[in-house]
Amino acid sequence: MNQDYIQPSNWSIIEEGFDPEKVKSSESLFSIGNGAMGQRANFEEKYSGETFQGSYIAGIYYPDKTKVGWWKNGYPKYFAKVLNAPNWIGIDIEINGESLDLNKCVKVENYRRELNMKEGWHNRSFIATLQNGTEVKVNARRFLSINLDEIGAISYEITPLNQDAKITYRPYIDAGITNEDTNWEEKFWEPLDVQNNKNQGFITAQTFKTHFKVTTFMHNSILEDDKIVDLQPDNVESSADKTQFSYTLNVVKNSKSSIQKLGGYTVSLNHENTQEAAENAIQKALKIGYQQLLLDQKEAWLKIWEMSDITIEGDIKAQQGIRFNIFQLNQTYLGKDSRLNIGPKGFTGEKYGGSTYWDTEAYCIPFYMATKDQQVARNLLTYRYNQLNKAIENAEQNLGFNNGAALYPMVTMNGEECHNEWEITHEEIHRNGAIAFAIYNYYRFTGDYSYIPEKGLEVLIAIARFWHQRASFSTQRNQYMILGVTGPNEYENNINNNFYTNYIAKWCIDYTNEQLQKVAIEYPKDHKRIIEKVKLSDAELKEWKKVAENMYFPKSEELGIYLQQDGFLDKDLIPVKDLDKSQRPINQKWSWDRVLRSPYIKQADVLQGFYFFEDHFTIDELKRNFEFYESFTVHESSLSPCVHSIQAAKLDKMDMAYKFYLRTSRLDLDDYNKEVEEGCHITSMAGTWMSIVEGFGGMRVKNNKLHFTPKIPKEWEGYSFKINFRNQIVKVAVTANGSTFTLDGNDEMTINVYEKDILISPNSATTV
Amino acid sequence: MNQDYIQPSNWSIIEEGFDPEKVKSSESLFSIGNGAMGQRANFEEKYSGETFQGSYIAGIYYPDKTKVGWWKNGYPKYFAKVLNAPNWIGIDIEINGESLDLNKCVKVENYRRELNMKEGWHNRSFIATLQNGTEVKVNARRFLSINLDEIGAISYEITPLNQDAKITYRPYIDAGITNEDTNWEEKFWEPLDVQNNKNQGFITAQTFKTHFKVTTFMHNSILEDDKIVDLQPDNVESSADKTQFSYTLNVVKNSKSSIQKLGGYTVSLNHENTQEAAENAIQKALKIGYQQLLLDQKEAWLKIWEMSDITIEGDIKAQQGIRFNIFQLNQTYLGKDSRLNIGPKGFTGEKYGGSTYWDTEAYCIPFYMATKDQQVARNLLTYRYNQLNKAIENAEQNLGFNNGAALYPMVTMNGEECHNEWEITHEEIHRNGAIAFAIYNYYRFTGDYSYIPEKGLEVLIAIARFWHQRASFSTQRNQYMILGVTGPNEYENNINNNFYTNYIAKWCIDYTNEQLQKVAIEYPKDHKRIIEKVKLSDAELKEWKKVAENMYFPKSEELGIYLQQDGFLDKDLIPVKDLDKSQRPINQKWSWDRVLRSPYIKQADVLQGFYFFEDHFTIDELKRNFEFYESFTVHESSLSPCVHSIQAAKLDKMDMAYKFYLRTSRLDLDDYNKEVEEGCHITSMAGTWMSIVEGFGGMRVKNNKLHFTPKIPKEWEGYSFKINFRNQIVKVAVTANGSTFTLDGNDEMTINVYEKDILISPNSATTV
Repeated sequence: MNQDYIQPSNWSIIEEGFDPEKVKSSESLFSIGNGAMGQRANFEEKYSGETFQGSYIAGIYYPDKTKVGWWKNGYPKYFAKVLNAPNWIGIDIEINGESLDLNKCVKVENYRRELNMKEGWHNRSFIATLQNGTEVKVNARRFLSINLDEIGAISYEITPLNQDAKITYRPYIDAGITNEDTNWEEKFWEPLDVQNNKNQGFITAQTFKTHFKVTTFMHNSILEDDKIVDLQPDNVESSADKTQFSYTLNVVKNSKSSIQKLGGYTVSLNHENTQEAAENAIQKALKIGYQQLLLDQKEAWLKIWEMSDITIEGDIKAQQGIRFNIFQLNQTYLGKDSRLNIGPKGFTGEKYGGSTYWDTEAYCIPFYMATKDQQVARNLLTYRYNQLNKAIENAEQNLGFNNGAALYPMVTMNGEECHNEWEITHEEIHRNGAIAFAIYNYYRFTGDYSYIPEKGLEVLIAIARFWHQRASFSTQRNQYMILGVTGPNEYENNINNNFYTNYIAKWCIDYTNEQLQKVAIEYPKDHKRIIEKVKLSDAELKEWKKVAENMYFPKSEELGIYLQQDGFLDKDLIPVKDLDKSQRPINQKWSWDRVLRSPYIKQADVLQGFYFFEDHFTIDELKRNFEFYESFTVHESSLSPCVHSIQAAKLDKMDMAYKFYLRTSRLDLDDYNKEVEEGCHITSMAGTWMSIVEGFGGMRVKNNKLHFTPKIPKEWEGYSFKINFRNQIVKVAVTANGSTFTLDGNDEMTINVYEKDILISPNSATTV
Repeated sequence: MNQDYIQPSNWSIIEEGFDPEKVKSSESLFSIGNGAMGQRANFEEKYSGETFQGSYIAGIYYPDKTKVGWWKNGYPKYFAKVLNAPNWIGIDIEINGESLDLNKCVKVENYRRELNMKEGWHNRSFIATLQNGTEVKVNARRFLSINLDEIGAISYEITPLNQDAKITYRPYIDAGITNEDTNWEEKFWEPLDVQNNKNQGFITAQTFKTHFKVTTFMHNSILEDDKIVDLQPDNVESSADKTQFSYTLNVVKNSKSSIQKLGGYTVSLNHENTQEAAENAIQKALKIGYQQLLLDQKEAWLKIWEMSDITIEGDIKAQQGIRFNIFQLNQTYLGKDSRLNIGPKGFTGEKYGGSTYWDTEAYCIPFYMATKDQQVARNLLTYRYNQLNKAIENAEQNLGFNNGAALYPMVTMNGEECHNEWEITHEEIHRNGAIAFAIYNYYRFTGDYSYIPEKGLEVLIAIARFWHQRASFSTQRNQYMILGVTGPNEYENNINNNFYTNYIAKWCIDYTNEQLQKVAIEYPKDHKRIIEKVKLSDAELKEWKKVAENMYFPKSEELGIYLQQDGFLDKDLIPVKDLDKSQRPINQKWSWDRVLRSPYIKQADVLQGFYFFEDHFTIDELKRNFEFYESFTVHESSLSPCVHSIQAAKLDKMDMAYKFYLRTSRLDLDDYNKEVEEGCHITSMAGTWMSIVEGFGGMRVKNNKLHFTPKIPKEWEGYSFKINFRNQIVKVAVTANGSTFTLDGNDEMTINVYEKDILISPNSATTV
């Protein structure tokens, strides 16, 4: 049974009623973020029940010493961990001498959380009866400013309901925090300095080893009847890593008092002097004021939604699902900073450590390209360009490759590999292909070729060099092979000739060759600069070609399918539908060897190749391969259902497409994988967006033109989405009766709908 | 460069000259043991230089909580670690107020260690000049009694050479010791009780979790001019886990004083009251006295050598090598106790944790069968029989197998799996085959069938059931396959259809079927009892047969070889001889993926099958397979060269056979693998014995008859060995001119030499 306590709503995530069992799940689902920082929806006041505390700052990590049972050569020395950052939200509350703690209250009523996705805030309200009999109404609102991304704001209101109350607000900041995920139970933060100044507190701390310096700060205002009163703390307690202020008020029954707490982080990534920067940040925020900050927040989110919203009519759960996905993606990454990337858990948990996986290139870039300025996608590409040297070092040191071949890491924060399982770290090399594909995809979508001569070509060459060296020649077959890999389907390790890997390897070499020729002609200066820098000879190019032209692809002529790897058909081919439900999910029920020798597929693998390179294959080939592989796919990766949804839609299997869409869009809200407590699956959320836009909408870009083949699930009355295509916005609205295309831009645009070109004009709707 | 500081000698291991760099290597090489306990050759007196302290008690272990980077289903919760046991050898020495410490002496001269293998003792002597100028001659002899296997004895003699000396002997026992190999730096021992009584000290301690109780004890006698003086300790210092006595003497220049320390362990595996047992053990030993204990020791080793010695004439290094191997095997395991087994490091180090690997069945049993009473091999078989239920649980819990299928653990102390790498723990399942093979081998050699109806058949049935369920059907090939395994060559993981594994699986089923039929006829009562106990039906037998009869074996018709696994010929087949030396050993130089996709073989794999089942293949098949696989074998396992040596001898490649023999026999003495500091490779030492007896001697048992085809390496003048065959001893002496067979027994015996039967008579020599 999946969870179902989240109330259906078009624009909000809502929880009603207090259930201690749900606290950790809700902490994940109600997380907030602004691209620069983010946090789980932990309570401000003390909570003695089960909780998973988490506040995160983009780009701040700790290299945790690798822990393994059996060391293998080539394992990285450390795993860069997402870091629980100092707590700035904490406000201990004392009411008539008793600490407010929902885990210890006699009664908690009218408990309600709302994550308002439209406006970008989180609100929690309840009526609690303390053990001392005092009944209070509490309303706590919190948001992380999109505009001032070092600033968060809390308004915490208390109204005593059955008697006068002496209320003490005890806001604090605390750098004495730990990670849940640590290999050796080490401390990650070293406190350096605590400063208190009237209503402001500052703690400067730095991470061990990486020496990121962070000033965590707060500014507190006390309000009575919504008016700020001029109150200084009546007590200040400071230790080396924590500072806490006390404000005591006598509040008469039924009247409201509150604290407004501004807080956040200033970090050495952005400032020389983080203390000074913190003082400035507070100053700036105070000048704007809490109410205006909140209004600005709504405005900022309005702008985000204007570009990225998808509407669905007639299916509120589907609507809530897609908005939750789009909201979380925007909370995680806004694309302003090319040093940052999109962590698989975003700011909702610690799991998976490093921030960058191939998820970014394979799943996230299409979303960001179509809903943001194209600079955002370019920043994501640049992130890899900036880490090229580390990828070259990686291939040199671990594989003995020379000559500038690059193997990008499986998981990284700073370009160095973090992961330490040989079957992933050393064998899941297809990631290199997705990084090259993203360069191609960026140019295809944006038409901005300049990235390739400027930066992309160097990355492509290093990747082509990798594939050339990584392939080995089989005298028996007289062809090149890629042995000992793990494909996208991580339920197979150390296999030979994974179709997807071999295919993308060949494609990488071919595409790099084409770009070399194009840059030679169109950007001769860049061509000369690059060739000299990377020392690329014609002889080497010939060697590449030999590999690409003679690459081996496993297939079954009889079944008319490509084989996921050599020997796949030797398995005991019992389809998933005949597998007893008690055995699922197999990765939780079975030992690893059993998973490996089974025919079950974790996520799209051959089909990932058909997704990336769909024009290389006929629809019949897609159909045969889809039907074969879908029957063995268990979708135990969050990244799987979206690809199958898109392909099912293409094959007119709309029921299947819809089923996969629901699974991907409500994966966390309905907690399909029973692990939402640990955080949300951020990167797969971009796959949900693809399911609608590329799946149901059939959006493609071919020959510099948008293509659509809209279809609609029978469960829906209509849906709409927008595409930012080369600085003009195309809105697509689909119902069972037809599709309407509206252009928000200055120039006419030819688009292709159901294989026919149509001309759409600015600000007028065209229905097909 | 291999090490070469060990002096050549026929019967001893000798080191001359003190080199602090060699202390840890020598601690391994000069280790002593008596089957029940053993210890590294640590110094008795204080040593502040680098040392690896180790004393071990057979059967005493600690379940150390498993440490992994990424947990996989089915990993065992703990790894049973060989345990460094309390120290009983320690004797701090003070000379004229200065502590004797070879690391701090002004001069150390005439330093000499000898491990006398003929008589079973270790002796260390030196002349040291202390910082205070006192020059002393020290002679320390130590042995672990074979007859009284709870007793060890030390005679530590000091003669001041240049002045009178006040000498304090401070013998102690200490349970405050730690393991070098611990996952979580936990303490393994809990001290319970310390008792002192005149010259005797006792510490009772128990292991955490496993609660093995051990009393460590000592009895001290002080001697002047070789006569025991009636001296009580002038001081006793006791803490919770250590007790230390002091004896102070004034010794005139050039006269000898000494301490005789008896010590050892009594354990709860053997005694209700370990303290009382310790008192009795001391009593018994004192009654015999140190000198007589030493004489008895020589006598006991004489008996061991009488049966197991191999002589080699004309090649002192080869002679020393084989005796070192035979000596260490006997120090490790004497076969008295079916609860014990043969750990891969014996009593020489902690590495590899658990005590029992498939090494026992594949490598050690032939040695013990031919050089001991047949009860010893039977005890080794019984060890597995006693752990059958755990092996059945293992298959149930980790693989979901039902119906009494057993998967024996890869590494174990008590029958439970200890190892935690999926590619080994879950995939190196061929170990099950060796356990069945050992049952066959035991009967073949000893002619004692009774083990099979009594115990062996149940083991065979459980193993056959395992293979039946583990095989899967390939509709494509219309054959059964075994997918996702690691073969004996651990440089391939998760491969399909490892020839060796498939072959031994089929053999297990066939052999079990045959034994079922034989037992039904010859032991009908046992048959009935077993069939009822394990609920075996004819229908199930039919299913087994289907698998055995339709098992798939990968092969190359073109090359006339079996393939190590599917796809082996797709590799880049560069032979080892063309691999640059800088790349060796590949397991230290290459990342794991590179090792895996290379064609390089760690140890005999297809050839292990040819070794076990040689009569199933023609000599031409052996030649083709040997020549093919030998060219890719890097022999980076200690278990590899012996099999290749045997097969090279069979193929008349005597130079190769000799090269492999030297490598296997002097692996530790010459430290080929640069790791002898960690301990010796005990189990592979049985392979060295096989290299001579089965390799050069060509010994086989066929149809209840010993067969020989003696050959001699050109480097040797002659060699001889003995075989205990069904309670008669056959001595084989080989020179270039012929082989002489001498029978020590009561009855005539027909043996087969070079394919011809000859009759040999008691106590007369027959030369061929």
